[in-house]
Amino acid sequence: MTHPTVIRPAEHAVYSADKMGKSTIFESTRLLVGLNAFESGQAHALHAHAGMDKVYSVLDGEGVFLLGGRRMLMKESDLLVAPDGVPHGVRNTGHGRLLVLAILAPNPGRK
Amino acid sequence: MTHPTVIRPAEHAVYSADKMGKSTIFESTRLLVGLNAFESGQAHALHAHAGMDKVYSVLDGEGVFLLGGRRMLMKESDLLVAPDGVPHGVRNTGHGRLLVLAILAPNPGRK
Repeated sequence: MTHPTVIRPAEHAVYSADKMGKSTIFESTRLLVGLNAFESGQAHALHAHAGMDKVYSVLDGEGVFLLGGRRMLMKESDLLVAPDGVPHGVRNTGHGRLLVLAILAPNPGRK
Repeated sequence: MTHPTVIRPAEHAVYSADKMGKSTIFESTRLLVGLNAFESGQAHALHAHAGMDKVYSVLDGEGVFLLGGRRMLMKESDLLVAPDGVPHGVRNTGHGRLLVLAILAPNPGRK
């Protein structure tokens, strides 16, 4: 993707029949802006990032988010922050697709 | 705000009659997650951040975003990335309010 440009996240979503689809919108050493795309029933297992914060923003659909021992139903426009080391996960419990903007700082792949 | 919790960004928006309103949703050394709230006609003048990337996500309304010499009309769910050093600004050219999620990495106030 060439910058600067207006990004319509839904156009960059990658869904997969096998498992959650991932795509990258932007990355630098400081930041990874990506999409997690879930078909109904798909999940991202509980995991944590050391030394990184993650922001989730629900762009479409709804699902259950796990964070620090809590379960929360999230829907379009809801936001969640998983700070450094706090376990988090996602399950698409809805009937339709779930699209989530996932922003990680710093970028885990470019340390 | 206590974490973990589902964040509904609109509930944290601060509008001001004088100028763009700012509020903070989450911050660490790595990340600042905030809101920029514009009444109709209000603007955030062109500026740049050295050593930081910014992600804008339009939550409500529409406006003109400046980035690296380009002018782009952005509306709800559109996203823009202003990488390190690239000048950017915003003007609410719509009739209603404009609410923008602004994520900076790293946090300019906690270096």
